[in-house]
Amino acid sequence: MSKIFIDACFGKETSYTPVWMMRQAGRYLPEYMQVREDAGSFLDLCHDPEKAAEVTIQPLDIVGVDAAILFSDILVIPDEMGMDLSFVKGEGPVFSDPVRTREDLDKLLGGEAAAQKLTYVYDTIKLLREKLDARGDDKALIGFTGAPWTLATYMIEGQGSKSYAISKKMMYSDPKLLHAILAKVTEVVKYYLQKQIEAGVDAVQIFDSWAAAIEPAKYDEFSWKYMVEIAEYIKEKFPHIPVILFPKGIAAFIECGSVYGNFDVFGVDWGTPMALAKEKLGEKYVLQGNMEPCRLYSKEATTECVEALQKIMGGKRHIFNLGHGILPDVPVENAKHFVSECHRVSGKR
Amino acid sequence: MSKIFIDACFGKETSYTPVWMMRQAGRYLPEYMQVREDAGSFLDLCHDPEKAAEVTIQPLDIVGVDAAILFSDILVIPDEMGMDLSFVKGEGPVFSDPVRTREDLDKLLGGEAAAQKLTYVYDTIKLLREKLDARGDDKALIGFTGAPWTLATYMIEGQGSKSYAISKKMMYSDPKLLHAILAKVTEVVKYYLQKQIEAGVDAVQIFDSWAAAIEPAKYDEFSWKYMVEIAEYIKEKFPHIPVILFPKGIAAFIECGSVYGNFDVFGVDWGTPMALAKEKLGEKYVLQGNMEPCRLYSKEATTECVEALQKIMGGKRHIFNLGHGILPDVPVENAKHFVSECHRVSGKR
Repeated sequence: MSKIFIDACFGKETSYTPVWMMRQAGRYLPEYMQVREDAGSFLDLCHDPEKAAEVTIQPLDIVGVDAAILFSDILVIPDEMGMDLSFVKGEGPVFSDPVRTREDLDKLLGGEAAAQKLTYVYDTIKLLREKLDARGDDKALIGFTGAPWTLATYMIEGQGSKSYAISKKMMYSDPKLLHAILAKVTEVVKYYLQKQIEAGVDAVQIFDSWAAAIEPAKYDEFSWKYMVEIAEYIKEKFPHIPVILFPKGIAAFIECGSVYGNFDVFGVDWGTPMALAKEKLGEKYVLQGNMEPCRLYSKEATTECVEALQKIMGGKRHIFNLGHGILPDVPVENAKHFVSECHRVSGKR
Repeated sequence: MSKIFIDACFGKETSYTPVWMMRQAGRYLPEYMQVREDAGSFLDLCHDPEKAAEVTIQPLDIVGVDAAILFSDILVIPDEMGMDLSFVKGEGPVFSDPVRTREDLDKLLGGEAAAQKLTYVYDTIKLLREKLDARGDDKALIGFTGAPWTLATYMIEGQGSKSYAISKKMMYSDPKLLHAILAKVTEVVKYYLQKQIEAGVDAVQIFDSWAAAIEPAKYDEFSWKYMVEIAEYIKEKFPHIPVILFPKGIAAFIECGSVYGNFDVFGVDWGTPMALAKEKLGEKYVLQGNMEPCRLYSKEATTECVEALQKIMGGKRHIFNLGHGILPDVPVENAKHFVSECHRVSGKR
C-alpha cells in the first residue's frame, strides 16, 4: 500500500497534505505518561521494545497523525559508544566522562560495532513494522538520529549547554580533534540508520538540534557536510527511503541548504519564515513544518497558522508539522485540532 | 572633543573603526573579579556607584576599547517596578512573584515613578561622566536597557527559560495582557533612558536578548514596535544621542529591520552573516558587530574574523564588536588582541 507520507516526501501529488508532530509520542499524552510510569525511567522506556513501540503508535490513533516516529532518544548513540548516559532531574542528559581529548575519543567504540549495540532500537522497529503492517492503513514509520554536530556537542560538553563554549573552543583551537569526533560519530550514524531501515522504518530524519550554535561561516564544515555524507550513504543503498533533515535555527544557513545535499525533505524550524524557506529551498526539497509549537496553546492561533501555511505552500511539496517539538503541557484536544485543521485545509475527506 | 565612537554611530567618516565588546566589564577580567568580590553579590555591585563606575572603566585601559558600557543589569527595571529580583547560584536571575495576571501587573510601579527609583544607575553615570571628562580622551559612555519583550519574558517566566512557554502561551491566548505588560515596561524604559542621558551617557543600546524567542510573524507586534516607540521618544528629545539596537538572533527578522525604526546603529548578532546584514540593513543603519565570541579562544580565529569583517564592511558605517557577550574564561590577552586587530585592520596609528 502506498503511504501518503512517503509519497509526499518524494514530492508526489497526494490527495491531502500529511501531518505529524515532532515529539508527538510524549508527555502531553496521558496514555504516554501511564506507559512511562510503568517502564521506570526515560532510558528504561527507550530500552523496552514493547513499551517503546506502544508509545510510538499512540499518536496515530489519539491525534490522527499520518506518520509515527520511533520513540527513542538521540543520545543512545554516544551511550552505546561507551559514554555513560544518565538523565538528571531538572538538568537533562548528563555524560559523566565528556570527550575532551584524542585519548577520550579513542576509548569509544565506533563504526558498525557501536551501531550493533543498539539492538533495542531495531527490536522496537521490528515490532512496530509488524503492528503497522497488521493495521493495514497507510501510516508510515520514521526512524531518526541526531546529527553528528549535535551529538558531538553533548559528548564534548557532557550535558546541555547555553554557550557550547567547550565545543566551540575546540572548533577554533583544535579543529582536527573536533573533526575526528565528528567523523567517528558519522560512521556510527550511517550504520545506525542503515540498521533502522533494515529493521523496517519507511523514512529517516536527521535532527541537527544545535545547528544554530555554529556561526554561518563554519556550518558547512562542522555540520552540514557530515549530514550530506550520511544522506549519500543512505540514498545510495536505499533510494526508496526518504531522508529528512531538520537543522534547528536555519534562517542564517538557509543559503547553505540550497547549494548541495542529497536530502528529500527539509524540516523548517518555526524561527524561519516558511515563505523564505520556500523561496530558497522549495525547488530542491519538499518542506516540512513549521508551526510555532506554542500556538498549540490556542486553537485560534493554530488555525490561523495552518491556514497561512496552506496559503504559502498551496498543498504542494509540503508536509505539515510543528517547527519544533510539542510541549508537555499542551492540551491533547489542541493537538487533535492541529492535525484535523491540517487535514481540513488540504482537502482530506 | 568629538568622540570617535559617536561619530561612527552617526555614520561619519572616522580615522579608524572603533570597537567595544558586549559584557566587556566582566568576569574575564581579574580586576573586575577583585572589585566584585569586595562588593558582595552581583546586585550589590550594580547598586554601588563607585564600584560600578570602576568596573565600567576598567576595559578602556586594560583592553583598549573605544567606548565604555555602563555596568548594570537589564533586570534592575522590573526589580524597581516592585518585583523581587535575586540571583540564584547556577540558576541565574529569579523573580519570586512572576507576572501572570492583570492584577499582578497592576501591583507594579510604572512610568517615571519606577524610573526614578533607579538612582544608583544615574549616580553611577554621573560619576563616570566626571571620570571620563577628567581623562580628556575621546572614549564614549554607553547606557542601556533591556527591550520590553526581553524584560517581559523574565517578568512572566519568573526566571530564564528555554521555551518561553508561559510568555508565549500568553501571546497566543491572551495577547491583550501581554501588550499591557509590554506597554507598561515601555513607559518605564523611556524614562529610564531619558534619565541615563540626562545623567551623562553619550549613547544608549537596547538589548533584545530574546528576540529569537518570537516567531517572525509576531516579532513586529510584540517586540519591534515597542523598541521603535522608545527610539522615537529618545530621538525626539535627544537627536544628538545615538540609539543602538541589538536584537539577538535576527537572521529571520532582518527584513523587519529594513522597514521602519528610528535607530542609528543595528547590532548584528554572530548568527547573522555580516554580508547579509549589510545587504539588507547597511544603508539604513550603521552596523555593529559581529564576531562569534568563542573565536576569542584563539588569536588566529580572531584575526581571521576581524579581517573578514573589515573586508565586508570596508571600514564604512561599521563599529567592531562581538556578536554576543564575551565569555568569562576568555584570556585577557586574547581580548586585547581582538581590540588591537580591529584597530590595525582599520588603520589606527
